[in-house]
Amino acid sequence: MIDAIYNHRSIRKYLTTEIPDKILEEILLAGTRASTTGNMQVYSIIVTKSPEVKEELLSAHFNQPMVKQAPVVLTFCADFHRFNLWCRERKAEPGYDNFLSFFTAAIDALLVAQNVATEAVANGLGICYLGTTTYNAGKIINILDLPEGVVPVTTLVVGYPDENPPRTDRLPLEAVIHAEKYQKPDAQAINRFYQEKEASELSRNLLEINQKETLAQIFTDLRYKKSDNLFFSKSFLEIIEKQGFMNHDS
Amino acid sequence: MIDAIYNHRSIRKYLTTEIPDKILEEILLAGTRASTTGNMQVYSIIVTKSPEVKEELLSAHFNQPMVKQAPVVLTFCADFHRFNLWCRERKAEPGYDNFLSFFTAAIDALLVAQNVATEAVANGLGICYLGTTTYNAGKIINILDLPEGVVPVTTLVVGYPDENPPRTDRLPLEAVIHAEKYQKPDAQAINRFYQEKEASELSRNLLEINQKETLAQIFTDLRYKKSDNLFFSKSFLEIIEKQGFMNHDS
Repeated sequence: MIDAIYNHRSIRKYLTTEIPDKILEEILLAGTRASTTGNMQVYSIIVTKSPEVKEELLSAHFNQPMVKQAPVVLTFCADFHRFNLWCRERKAEPGYDNFLSFFTAAIDALLVAQNVATEAVANGLGICYLGTTTYNAGKIINILDLPEGVVPVTTLVVGYPDENPPRTDRLPLEAVIHAEKYQKPDAQAINRFYQEKEASELSRNLLEINQKETLAQIFTDLRYKKSDNLFFSKSFLEIIEKQGFMNHDS
Repeated sequence: MIDAIYNHRSIRKYLTTEIPDKILEEILLAGTRASTTGNMQVYSIIVTKSPEVKEELLSAHFNQPMVKQAPVVLTFCADFHRFNLWCRERKAEPGYDNFLSFFTAAIDALLVAQNVATEAVANGLGICYLGTTTYNAGKIINILDLPEGVVPVTTLVVGYPDENPPRTDRLPLEAVIHAEKYQKPDAQAINRFYQEKEASELSRNLLEINQKETLAQIFTDLRYKKSDNLFFSKSFLEIIEKQGFMNHDS
């Protein structure tokens, strides 16, 4: 297996060492080699190094310290703005102000992000994805001046690791792979799939600290709560509309 | 740059040679090493090898012959079904029936897909993404028996290449990268970004064959038309709702 894939761990502590421009360019170029729909490349990457802009992004990412600590923050955006401009400059009327186009552009941006992540690790860098990007997309749009047609979908912090954590656990392959058709797991299968995760020291510590009976409750009651999900669902859908991707009646 | 990233091209013609189980398992395992939100792994991969199921998938993918020709078709799904079952088996009430959770699971599935793509290329295989997955998600759900909480977001065909196409063109890095804040391109910048693409022999042939004045018109009038986008936007949003990801008022 490609080393950078096999040995990837999320890194949450970074050295202050800057990333040489040549290496940063190489990992961004690796991003651009990803397949995109119709080779349209409807994505953009905003490269943040300035401490002032990172400070602004920090609150949008719920003050996760690595946003300030890592030398580079990369915000990956679904972006039809550039493509639409090109169309209008070329006597072509773009029809990309709809949800399908948003999702197409989001796919582009995410495949690019994973190439950047893998190439970064191959260059001795550490990375961490910030899922908070979709939660506070509106704030990020304001901070980074994202125009109509542009929605941030994920963020990578990148830098030289100041920690060496073990690889995290994964469900057994049989949990996520289905041969030919989807096989709905029964209670026994669920026990088998989650057994190792539930038995780990990390999980048992989490139960102890949070005074919960099951690991699943840590997710539903603390980490990814229904009320938060509903709140951020509405705001993210509003942002998709505000950025011009929900004009379905025209 | 990692060879499998640098040298990736989409492959549209495949040998009938089967993929050894050990190699297939390796590339799927590479998928599972991708980061996912909270390490929840809310995705599934449906592995289609059977000629009968491939025949059914063929029409959902607008009869692109590689769906039948390639020995393996991998459908990547946003999947909260398994996670929700786990929660319910563990006295936890899942709150993942909303758009944010769908999008979170879609991100997981797409990062996994790109790892699988890169690892496949590293093993001498060719791949091609099928953007048609979101267009006909409803058909694919029926064919693959995808239950509530599961939405297909992309597909890879995988097999040994029977062609050796050149790498395709990319916009210059400056077109997709923005330093600190988004820089809206002006007409001159647009000219510069698209100059090489527009001047290519491939593009000039397309204009000739399709009797169009500009390359952009090939996209807007033929390949990715507004009317199609609107139609598939509505059906994809309906599918997201039908699979249980739009319960925002509960």
